[in-house]
Amino acid sequence: MLVTALVRPVVLRALAEDLEGGDLTTEATVPEGARAVGRAIAGGPIVVCGGDVFRTVFHELDPSLHVTVVTEEGALAQRGQVLWEVRGSARSILMGERTALNFVQRMSGIATLARRFVGALPQGSVTRITDTRKTTPGLRMLERYAVRTGGAHNHRDTLGSAVLIKDNHIVAAGGVRAAVTRARARAPHTTRIEIEVETLPMLDEALSAGADIVMLDNFAPDEVAEAVKRAHGKAQVEVSGGITLERVATLARAGVDVVSVGALTHSAPAADIGLDLSNEGAPTT
Amino acid sequence: MLVTALVRPVVLRALAEDLEGGDLTTEATVPEGARAVGRAIAGGPIVVCGGDVFRTVFHELDPSLHVTVVTEEGALAQRGQVLWEVRGSARSILMGERTALNFVQRMSGIATLARRFVGALPQGSVTRITDTRKTTPGLRMLERYAVRTGGAHNHRDTLGSAVLIKDNHIVAAGGVRAAVTRARARAPHTTRIEIEVETLPMLDEALSAGADIVMLDNFAPDEVAEAVKRAHGKAQVEVSGGITLERVATLARAGVDVVSVGALTHSAPAADIGLDLSNEGAPTT
Amino acid sequence: MLVTALVRPVVLRALAEDLEGGDLTTEATVPEGARAVGRAIAGGPIVVCGGDVFRTVFHELDPSLHVTVVTEEGALAQRGQVLWEVRGSARSILMGERTALNFVQRMSGIATLARRFVGALPQGSVTRITDTRKTTPGLRMLERYAVRTGGAHNHRDTLGSAVLIKDNHIVAAGGVRAAVTRARARAPHTTRIEIEVETLPMLDEALSAGADIVMLDNFAPDEVAEAVKRAHGKAQVEVSGGITLERVATLARAGVDVVSVGALTHSAPAADIGLDLSNEGAPTT
Amino acid sequence: MLVTALVRPVVLRALAEDLEGGDLTTEATVPEGARAVGRAIAGGPIVVCGGDVFRTVFHELDPSLHVTVVTEEGALAQRGQVLWEVRGSARSILMGERTALNFVQRMSGIATLARRFVGALPQGSVTRITDTRKTTPGLRMLERYAVRTGGAHNHRDTLGSAVLIKDNHIVAAGGVRAAVTRARARAPHTTRIEIEVETLPMLDEALSAGADIVMLDNFAPDEVAEAVKRAHGKAQVEVSGGITLERVATLARAGVDVVSVGALTHSAPAADIGLDLSNEGAPTT
Amino acid sequence: MLVTALVRPVVLRALAEDLEGGDLTTEATVPEGARAVGRAIAGGPIVVCGGDVFRTVFHELDPSLHVTVVTEEGALAQRGQVLWEVRGSARSILMGERTALNFVQRMSGIATLARRFVGALPQGSVTRITDTRKTTPGLRMLERYAVRTGGAHNHRDTLGSAVLIKDNHIVAAGGVRAAVTRARARAPHTTRIEIEVETLPMLDEALSAGADIVMLDNFAPDEVAEAVKRAHGKAQVEVSGGITLERVATLARAGVDVVSVGALTHSAPAADIGLDLSNEGAPTT
Amino acid sequence: MLVTALVRPVVLRALAEDLEGGDLTTEATVPEGARAVGRAIAGGPIVVCGGDVFRTVFHELDPSLHVTVVTEEGALAQRGQVLWEVRGSARSILMGERTALNFVQRMSGIATLARRFVGALPQGSVTRITDTRKTTPGLRMLERYAVRTGGAHNHRDTLGSAVLIKDNHIVAAGGVRAAVTRARARAPHTTRIEIEVETLPMLDEALSAGADIVMLDNFAPDEVAEAVKRAHGKAQVEVSGGITLERVATLARAGVDVVSVGALTHSAPAADIGLDLSNEGAPTT
Repeated sequence: MLVTALVRPVVLRALAEDLEGGDLTTEATVPEGARAVGRAIAGGPIVVCGGDVFRTVFHELDPSLHVTVVTEEGALAQRGQVLWEVRGSARSILMGERTALNFVQRMSGIATLARRFVGALPQGSVTRITDTRKTTPGLRMLERYAVRTGGAHNHRDTLGSAVLIKDNHIVAAGGVRAAVTRARARAPHTTRIEIEVETLPMLDEALSAGADIVMLDNFAPDEVAEAVKRAHGKAQVEVSGGITLERVATLARAGVDVVSVGALTHSAPAADIGLDLSNEGAPTT
Repeated sequence: MLVTALVRPVVLRALAEDLEGGDLTTEATVPEGARAVGRAIAGGPIVVCGGDVFRTVFHELDPSLHVTVVTEEGALAQRGQVLWEVRGSARSILMGERTALNFVQRMSGIATLARRFVGALPQGSVTRITDTRKTTPGLRMLERYAVRTGGAHNHRDTLGSAVLIKDNHIVAAGGVRAAVTRARARAPHTTRIEIEVETLPMLDEALSAGADIVMLDNFAPDEVAEAVKRAHGKAQVEVSGGITLERVATLARAGVDVVSVGALTHSAPAADIGLDLSNEGAPTT
Repeated sequence: MLVTALVRPVVLRALAEDLEGGDLTTEATVPEGARAVGRAIAGGPIVVCGGDVFRTVFHELDPSLHVTVVTEEGALAQRGQVLWEVRGSARSILMGERTALNFVQRMSGIATLARRFVGALPQGSVTRITDTRKTTPGLRMLERYAVRTGGAHNHRDTLGSAVLIKDNHIVAAGGVRAAVTRARARAPHTTRIEIEVETLPMLDEALSAGADIVMLDNFAPDEVAEAVKRAHGKAQVEVSGGITLERVATLARAGVDVVSVGALTHSAPAADIGLDLSNEGAPTT
Repeated sequence: MLVTALVRPVVLRALAEDLEGGDLTTEATVPEGARAVGRAIAGGPIVVCGGDVFRTVFHELDPSLHVTVVTEEGALAQRGQVLWEVRGSARSILMGERTALNFVQRMSGIATLARRFVGALPQGSVTRITDTRKTTPGLRMLERYAVRTGGAHNHRDTLGSAVLIKDNHIVAAGGVRAAVTRARARAPHTTRIEIEVETLPMLDEALSAGADIVMLDNFAPDEVAEAVKRAHGKAQVEVSGGITLERVATLARAGVDVVSVGALTHSAPAADIGLDLSNEGAPTT
Repeated sequence: MLVTALVRPVVLRALAEDLEGGDLTTEATVPEGARAVGRAIAGGPIVVCGGDVFRTVFHELDPSLHVTVVTEEGALAQRGQVLWEVRGSARSILMGERTALNFVQRMSGIATLARRFVGALPQGSVTRITDTRKTTPGLRMLERYAVRTGGAHNHRDTLGSAVLIKDNHIVAAGGVRAAVTRARARAPHTTRIEIEVETLPMLDEALSAGADIVMLDNFAPDEVAEAVKRAHGKAQVEVSGGITLERVATLARAGVDVVSVGALTHSAPAADIGLDLSNEGAPTT
Repeated sequence: MLVTALVRPVVLRALAEDLEGGDLTTEATVPEGARAVGRAIAGGPIVVCGGDVFRTVFHELDPSLHVTVVTEEGALAQRGQVLWEVRGSARSILMGERTALNFVQRMSGIATLARRFVGALPQGSVTRITDTRKTTPGLRMLERYAVRTGGAHNHRDTLGSAVLIKDNHIVAAGGVRAAVTRARARAPHTTRIEIEVETLPMLDEALSAGADIVMLDNFAPDEVAEAVKRAHGKAQVEVSGGITLERVATLARAGVDVVSVGALTHSAPAADIGLDLSNEGAPTT
């Protein structure tokens, strides 16, 4: 669920970026009264994401445009499937086309990649796939939403919403126990304390210091299994860094609670979505 | 070259996105006076891009931080190579780390991919690789800069900076000649007129109508060659859509002037760059 | 055509400028439920421009106001002619009156001046009158639109949408040929290369370097004619600087392609438009 | 005096308007390290205004630029006189030139026109020339400052800073007395009450109702004199509407306290100011 | 009366502050289609203020929500009384609840305190209770409106809307007379001149210099009476600083014109208002 | 710790609110070159908070002003104690005075109230006093910081940073267990699950459903004790609503973990802080 009031400023910046000088081509070639229907169509199998943003782009540009959702958010669409329709002034549709597609291609790209990672989990697994804070500057809200739409989970939203103690924090605090203790004393009581550990002894120290979540950094497969055993009943186990689709099943079978994947947001290729315009469009539904 | 005044609002939005609730972990674990040096390090071979943005992130966050460029913009860095250094308050460095990396990983990712496409051109080729308007909403300025840093060229910036007539415009205008003529009459005299064509007859019409640039849509390889021949001395030839590294050389050899590649900005994977913190940093240079 | 989404922030800034402290007079003297109709009326012959902005001001201020266009955009209105009507809350109309008029007086002033320059061209002339980048800070989009509404053309929109090489660029680049060559190599292929020349030999160099457009700086009338002759078939000829209504016809007859006029936007006097309020307004149409 | 913090957002919008797509010409032709000095030079006699804005434009664009004030704010400069200098990166100076000039040409244009109106007052006159709220949307702060710089005075700043009752307010309130009384009861005690009157009887009613200022609308010359006599010792007299340089002296001699002139801000022609660049600039002072 | 266009940005910032990371609880527990009615209810006797802001919060968040005013602005509501209703998506109501209440609790708190001060005036008194510029940063417009809603008056809005000469200004100007004279010469003719005085001789000097309003600083009760006598017919008398409900009647009886109270805006406790949600709400009216 | 980059926009809005029309008084009475020192002085015992904001206000207004911290953040200052000094242009200091004080009076007021609540805890108590989301719209970041400065803790920052299930959520989800389970499944693994309970049986259900924190709503004192006993070792216990200084010790002795107090931010009276200006200021330290 996206709050339109918060999406609108992001959309407006994108429209301004493309349109502040007008649209030379459309104004010259398309008559002012011409009407059309634009259909967003999947160019291959994708997880659909961004309908609200698609609608917001066109509504901001021209409130008289009418947008219809044809394929539901989160559905797996096939090549050629219509996702959304926009109907009204041909000029307005052409002027918003690229901006709208730039959003939904990215969002659907992320949702599609998230779905692939979730799909790589063994049947019945309770392991979570999560994103990270490696999001596109300015688009975190949209990208986290796309991750959820793809069936994965979100990690902490910001530096202020949860504690994640990394190596530099540990050094600065003077050790694992000191770091966990200080964070516990300072952070809101609503927040869990997560800490990154590099070895099994460090894990033991983190567990004994009362960490709620341990993040294993660079653990060998058998060390991961051992870590899960030691943490059992005491803390959740998260693995991050260099996660591939192949490793996901192994980690899940080892009993890891959370696998966080930066690539979900920083390296998802754009989903292939195009906009087909026709001058006499009849409603799809 | 990036204008800092215009980069700053983009950076501020990114900082606000991550830090408006403070940094629970750093504030709890890192003493206020602690000083450190952070070194941005390449995790593999990449084309370096984003030094000015890296600096702006840390300067906005804490004007007392000192940023040094170690590897020049546009250079090819190897795994382990230091790109930039930031020195000062350990807290400030830790709080800005993720935001800074989110920018430079994306920008260097784009520059690296652009360099690969440019590198795929035959020796001595005058064919241009360009981006498209398929950029990340809100980051077009940074991404176009990254494309140039990687050695490729920019296509038109916005809908208002040049004319590109597509199929829907042609239909709306009532044909190729009408579309070109109207665009010529309406657009600034500083702008060339580009038109997308789907067949050789359509190309001929575009050339006779006086188009400055023709974009070949879905032309078979031998048609491309024929198109180049017909356009010779009359118009530039651009090819777009489904461009792979493999096709680039073929198109260049066929004499195509411009190859535009949406993937440069919409699907470039993030470059692998990390930030190594050490508590006693001596200057690199 | 103006994109409302991009006009709205400009309008909001103007409303905030005038109304953030409320309207002491109206709140004290006009009852909350009072209704009125306001008619924007021309105080002399003007080219009408700004209906969309007029509407946006009142709609932003009070979405229940109803705005009607009485005289079409671009029409030549006579003294006393009603241009637009706004109907609804008397308080809201009074609060928005000044802001709305400040916009449309400026826009119609520019359109009116543009029309005069266009009207000064000889019958059947193909010479273009264009604006420059000498626009009011923050209002370029509106002013360029007003120029077009008056029948003139736009020059390049921004420093990033086309190349215009001036004397300082030539010096810095090391000569006309170097400047043109570098610009050609660097600028998007969609952009023409314009260069300012001060003498006939410089013009020759620019033509031989392949400039697309030459701008004549301070050429005597007979030199202009000679320049047009030499550039024929090779480049467009633009004249700028100190253009008066009187010179326009001469330049057009000399075959100049483009005459750019800074005064269109930087020195157009405000059009005389007032708002007449009546307490019981019947619809005009 | 201008508050830089409040000028900066206005300047940033102007820079973004021109530069968000970069500066194709400068980046292509001017080497990155080139240094220059730019001198803003008057093209005719003008009242100098806008030095702080000139500086802010260049400092925002490139904090390493150095700006020097050569001619003081408010001075009358002659053709050829240097007003300000900017020294540093040639690229940065060229990129900011147009934006800086757009501001100072407008501001100096207003100051120059204001000076002419003030100069039209008889020797020793205490009559004030003031501006109105007919300012350019988004630039009111700068334009009011320019009016003061030219030696004229400001009228009320916003609808919330003082009361000015016009004909529509009077009708809505049910008469002059009711309007004045209500405004007195509602407005801050720090604010005077001004009312527009159309006839001498209306003036009498306004005076007896305790108006602090009366604005004469469309009064014949002898009526103005009579109005001044009747208002003497009771209220200030302001005349507005259709004020020319010629009428100013007459009105002042008639004893009018305030003459408000919309043209100061809505129709002042741009002052002629150019920027001369030289590659080796020695300091002027 | 509040201008919605100017309230909206304030509301949007507040929504962003709370909701940019979504609403974890509501999204997890409340089904997307669930509908509810929320009733804002007074927890004790309060002066009702903020209905337009309440509506704006919910409309910005979700335009499909329907807000009804049940108790009129400015009314005195009793414990348990319904003030406003919002009807529609249960999710949207829950997501906006806190933001809406944060606004109206503050506004109603100020209105309630203002009413208490006004109520402390003797029957028939013409003394004004006013606010000061000691408002919450970013909320001045809303707080001044709340003061008026409570029945008190506003003092000057900004540093630019009226003159108030304090001790430091007097010292800098070289005395009371010089300060008043300079202010008179410089300030708009629509503005009164107020000056703060500390002794009776200083008061005399201010009166003789022509001050319009004198503000008594730290005057003993009998000195206040004497000051009122001396100022009679020459200037209004304002008292500020350390005003309690008890002192108000005394000051009014002494004939003071204006009593300004910083606490109205800087120390008003929040009004007790809660939001009761029910899943099947029937319209109240 | 406050991030200056994020404080700056808040400060700029406040400055614009007060200064967009200039400062009539200061510009008229204080010479441009006058220099002064302003000392912020406590008017009674307060917990000092807001030094960074004080500095930011003056630096934004005039970068040449020099601000010194005299009393450390979080210290208890006595009446007459100097907190901060600002030195430089007398005009700039006077123009920023009110804005700076409006911030620090509010922040110190909150810190002072927070300290009183923390001081009401029994010696050695581990009970936390926390704020709530009942903060001033637009100032949450500053107010949460003030709460910490006073020695209390923050509750969750936003609706997106932790889960807090209230009665309406429980009803919508179909019961306590369903609500907790759904929240657990949906929320980030870094977040604890808090739920509000109204009876002991409801508490039991919450504990058995695995809630991490239970918030007791309207529990009688002996019920609180019983709740603490039942929750022991299973969940943290929070009490909220109608908390007075008197109740705090009782709740702490009963073993409650967290006491959240809305009044900390919504009803803290402004701290008494004034700015003393002197024309020849010698450094304090």
